[in-house]
Amino acid sequence: MRAAVMYGAGDVRIEDRPDPEIQQPTDAVVRVVLSCVCGSDLWPYKSMPATGTGRPMGHEFLGVVEETASAVSGVAAGDLVVAPFTYCDNTCDYCARGLHISCRNGGRYGFAGVDGGQGEAVRVPQADGTLVKLPVDADSPLLPSLLTLSDVMGTGHHGAVTAGVERGDSVLVIGDGAVGLCAVIAAKRLGAERIVLMGRHTARTDLGREFGATDVVAERGEEGIARVRELAGGDGVARVIEAVGTLETLQTALASVVDGGTISRLGVPQYEEGPVGASMIMRNITLTGGASPARAYIEELMPDVLDGVIAPGRVFDRTFTLDQAPDAYRAMADRQVLKALITP
Amino acid sequence: MRAAVMYGAGDVRIEDRPDPEIQQPTDAVVRVVLSCVCGSDLWPYKSMPATGTGRPMGHEFLGVVEETASAVSGVAAGDLVVAPFTYCDNTCDYCARGLHISCRNGGRYGFAGVDGGQGEAVRVPQADGTLVKLPVDADSPLLPSLLTLSDVMGTGHHGAVTAGVERGDSVLVIGDGAVGLCAVIAAKRLGAERIVLMGRHTARTDLGREFGATDVVAERGEEGIARVRELAGGDGVARVIEAVGTLETLQTALASVVDGGTISRLGVPQYEEGPVGASMIMRNITLTGGASPARAYIEELMPDVLDGVIAPGRVFDRTFTLDQAPDAYRAMADRQVLKALITP
Repeated sequence: MRAAVMYGAGDVRIEDRPDPEIQQPTDAVVRVVLSCVCGSDLWPYKSMPATGTGRPMGHEFLGVVEETASAVSGVAAGDLVVAPFTYCDNTCDYCARGLHISCRNGGRYGFAGVDGGQGEAVRVPQADGTLVKLPVDADSPLLPSLLTLSDVMGTGHHGAVTAGVERGDSVLVIGDGAVGLCAVIAAKRLGAERIVLMGRHTARTDLGREFGATDVVAERGEEGIARVRELAGGDGVARVIEAVGTLETLQTALASVVDGGTISRLGVPQYEEGPVGASMIMRNITLTGGASPARAYIEELMPDVLDGVIAPGRVFDRTFTLDQAPDAYRAMADRQVLKALITP
Repeated sequence: MRAAVMYGAGDVRIEDRPDPEIQQPTDAVVRVVLSCVCGSDLWPYKSMPATGTGRPMGHEFLGVVEETASAVSGVAAGDLVVAPFTYCDNTCDYCARGLHISCRNGGRYGFAGVDGGQGEAVRVPQADGTLVKLPVDADSPLLPSLLTLSDVMGTGHHGAVTAGVERGDSVLVIGDGAVGLCAVIAAKRLGAERIVLMGRHTARTDLGREFGATDVVAERGEEGIARVRELAGGDGVARVIEAVGTLETLQTALASVVDGGTISRLGVPQYEEGPVGASMIMRNITLTGGASPARAYIEELMPDVLDGVIAPGRVFDRTFTLDQAPDAYRAMADRQVLKALITP
């Protein structure tokens, strides 16, 4: 089969790889119908050291089950399914408390002999726990929005949930990438009254307004902080969703949150140390969030996608074929494209 | 009046200062019956640069109201009252949501012309919001425990509340100082089933066991972490209360908490930067806590003190007169004394 493999920064290639085969009794093989490029794929695309072996890419996909192993009973050949961005058994104690990202039998696509999602097919470990059936046909116009349940929409929702967003709240979303925009959807869905979106790409912030942002702050740094605090009445915002992951955006979050407020981080931190000293303690700031247990949220979010209440698939602004995946990476890295959809 | 004043590291003096007088219509003057030395007083005692003017010390006290200004109606001359460690109006929006530490009209004792608690009397700003009447006589044996409501017991409780301690939980308390020990009391009071106390001063950890600690870990660093994880069944503890404030104890907390768990920090951080990078995100660790809104908790905790359900006053292991306050600092800094009670 053909699949996207990264060999180092800027070096994504489409190549022939062995067709996935059942290896474990809990496996399924899924023929990919739609996949996409994640913002987090751009970090290795910018910085991965060159390697001779390469790493299969992609962790967001939906497709049709082709084959299931002996212990799989929840899905069957022919089912259209979506996969969360890590696989999981959905039964261990971590999964039981909704932390599927830490599943005892879970893992990541593209590592340890598991295929990536940007390819023609994927061997999915822990298929019963991982895969969720989609009650639509493979040509449904809802597929892009259903694909976001594999990661970005579940991640934005995780940000809103862990930030503690409740009806009537004021929320700041830092970052107008696909995760930030999905966090806007999630905050609105949970009843936030005021949603300030920080970002400076007009096309993206315009989409953010359509998703529910009530205010857009294009300024960064001190100016941006001053503008957010002004919008929040001077004291800062109760709930901040930080969807970028740089030290600067963490500092912006800390300076924009009200005393006693909560910052939920979604972006993979591009720093090891952060300013969590006395000021954070005196102000009772909570730092929470993390990698989303996307699997935990699929059943909750799917009905709203099916009913058209939310349309997170609008974050996909260009479609590439699998052979064009290298172009998709380049276009996203150059910010020509917000989020690239990939068809086999 | 006589009062304790710090002029620099290791330099606490008892000196004559002007008797407190009403300055604002919301003031009261309180004659101190009991005060004490806080663990946080030891940081300036170790590191404060020498100064010519000095800083009145102490922020934990109870006493008898001597005089009230025109706008004060909640307390009257003769009332025995306890004061939380910062004053507050108890009516602003921060106080209304329980964050009295950030009160719009609040402040700290010993700063900006406000007396410290380690003296014969204190002018208390925002007396109606700050002072809470004690339904006992001034010679009650409960006074030391009631005094802890001004800070340490309210701080330990804040740790347990923000860590999210619930019935049946496993909790790790890092630090066997007075705050750590009060956190043990608070965790038990909220129903924690297993309470692991990390500390290596046997007299203190013994008291911790009497307060409710089910296990004591005397080891530090890697050894201590391994022991805690072993006690927790290998994965770490769901709730950690960090009651020391060094980078090492934060690292211990991060290494001891289970994925998805919560660390509440109570100790004043002796660091500006902490390790809050990718690992914390991948593990969904929440960092919370902060300076306690002690005023918020007095009404909730006082009945349990009055009923003898909790006896946090047992953290006081030696009594000094005000004139001996310099000895009290020395004894606490040398770890001869856990927490020093001061009588005028």
